[in-house]
Amino acid sequence: MDVITKVKEMQTRVLSIKDRKESIGFVPTMGALHEGHVSLIRSARNENDELIVSIYLNPTQFDNKDDFDNYPHQLDKDIEIVERENADVVFAPDTEEIYPEGFCTYVTQGKLIDSLCGRLRPGHFNGVTTIVTKLFNIIRPDRAYFGQKDFQQSIVIKKLVADLNMNIDIKVLPTVRDEDGLALSSRNKRLNPEERHSALCIYGSLLKAKSMFASNIKDSKEIIEEMTSIIKKAKHTRIDYISIVNAHTLEDVSSINGKAVAAVAVWIGNTRLIDNLILE
Amino acid sequence: MDVITKVKEMQTRVLSIKDRKESIGFVPTMGALHEGHVSLIRSARNENDELIVSIYLNPTQFDNKDDFDNYPHQLDKDIEIVERENADVVFAPDTEEIYPEGFCTYVTQGKLIDSLCGRLRPGHFNGVTTIVTKLFNIIRPDRAYFGQKDFQQSIVIKKLVADLNMNIDIKVLPTVRDEDGLALSSRNKRLNPEERHSALCIYGSLLKAKSMFASNIKDSKEIIEEMTSIIKKAKHTRIDYISIVNAHTLEDVSSINGKAVAAVAVWIGNTRLIDNLILE
Repeated sequence: MDVITKVKEMQTRVLSIKDRKESIGFVPTMGALHEGHVSLIRSARNENDELIVSIYLNPTQFDNKDDFDNYPHQLDKDIEIVERENADVVFAPDTEEIYPEGFCTYVTQGKLIDSLCGRLRPGHFNGVTTIVTKLFNIIRPDRAYFGQKDFQQSIVIKKLVADLNMNIDIKVLPTVRDEDGLALSSRNKRLNPEERHSALCIYGSLLKAKSMFASNIKDSKEIIEEMTSIIKKAKHTRIDYISIVNAHTLEDVSSINGKAVAAVAVWIGNTRLIDNLILE
Repeated sequence: MDVITKVKEMQTRVLSIKDRKESIGFVPTMGALHEGHVSLIRSARNENDELIVSIYLNPTQFDNKDDFDNYPHQLDKDIEIVERENADVVFAPDTEEIYPEGFCTYVTQGKLIDSLCGRLRPGHFNGVTTIVTKLFNIIRPDRAYFGQKDFQQSIVIKKLVADLNMNIDIKVLPTVRDEDGLALSSRNKRLNPEERHSALCIYGSLLKAKSMFASNIKDSKEIIEEMTSIIKKAKHTRIDYISIVNAHTLEDVSSINGKAVAAVAVWIGNTRLIDNLILE
């Protein structure tokens, strides 16, 4: 497995892969890899000739400096994990390589980013759409893999690819959870044992939504009230949002009618966690 | 030569060209083709295996509805011209194909677009960067051809390609002029004979700038004053801007030191024309 840090070298490598007419699977990550990433990497490995994993902690998608500064770094360990999964290339550029001085071109999106995390993390998704566009242009994958945990991100990226006519198949894989149900996230490492326990209320609230929906309760307000009460009962929690949205437009729905998503963002102490379940 | 109107069909065609490992030359146009376009098409024909010309009057780069409504349309004639130059494909999509309902992703640029035409045509260059990104993603050219007449556009597109890591060689070819010096433009058709005569003041003012610079006059203000007086003497003129800018950053320079561009935008009656000359 090769570790490539320069854009030019990565592009040359991609050209040689294309020359051999091999397919490219791509898993973009910000490092601090966990089993959620591994599940994406394994699918990409199975479905493509060549597997490229990027590790780049993109500063422009952090709207909170503390969150960026405290995001876990473990490049050597990450490279080991990726190598164990038989990737062909790790692309791990530094920020001068990605945003050289004078950089001034951004990819932005209206509508979709005004709901859920977009409302509370201004600029976040413009950071995501810009870095993903750059990585897609460098790697030119046939298929790219994302986790359902970042549900809004997956919708934003599907829309990006459709609107800008990129010929890339976006694969969204199920959220990987710990045995007790907590969605895997690089940010879970920041939780102390008590916070880790409190964080279970997130999945608990989503399961409650799912069971209410299964019992034919379609009124979002009623479901959200139950979810809110579950989360408020847990210690160290502060709700960022609890929403039930249309799974395609991400607009709030008052009554569930068609594919919807229950989505939650909660601060547990100083760590913001997100999770979601599809209701259909 | 094939005329393709659907994005999917165009992408399939491009894949088959890539499969044969042939190079693609691309000339994006808004139609109303003149000898300036033909010079781009000929260069692209010489330098590539396959030549694709797009004809699409992009509404999002017009900030003025009158200008859009009055822009010349002549698709059949344009297709004839392109066929005569031995292009392989004309890509002529309609707006529903390019901006389907719900389209919401835009490519934007800071800095570079705040000077010259960017200052006076807000939104114009975001329209350009978005449509060019889409066309580049559909056509995936090795080389793309633009005219120096739209100098700021050529700089904006070079920056777009660099910032978003598109692996495309941007070729900028010299402005083609009528015998009397007027830069060819699709908008020249709108001038009546008297206005056509007045429009010569534009090139006249640029030649004056060039000769002053050649006589070692480096002070922008002094040169711009002479240019202004030449244009004001002509009938039916209203100056939009007369600027001398750094050829890379497009920032105004007070004293010419390194490669600079004298750039002019002037209304002749109801028609806005632009032109420029490099001073070096």
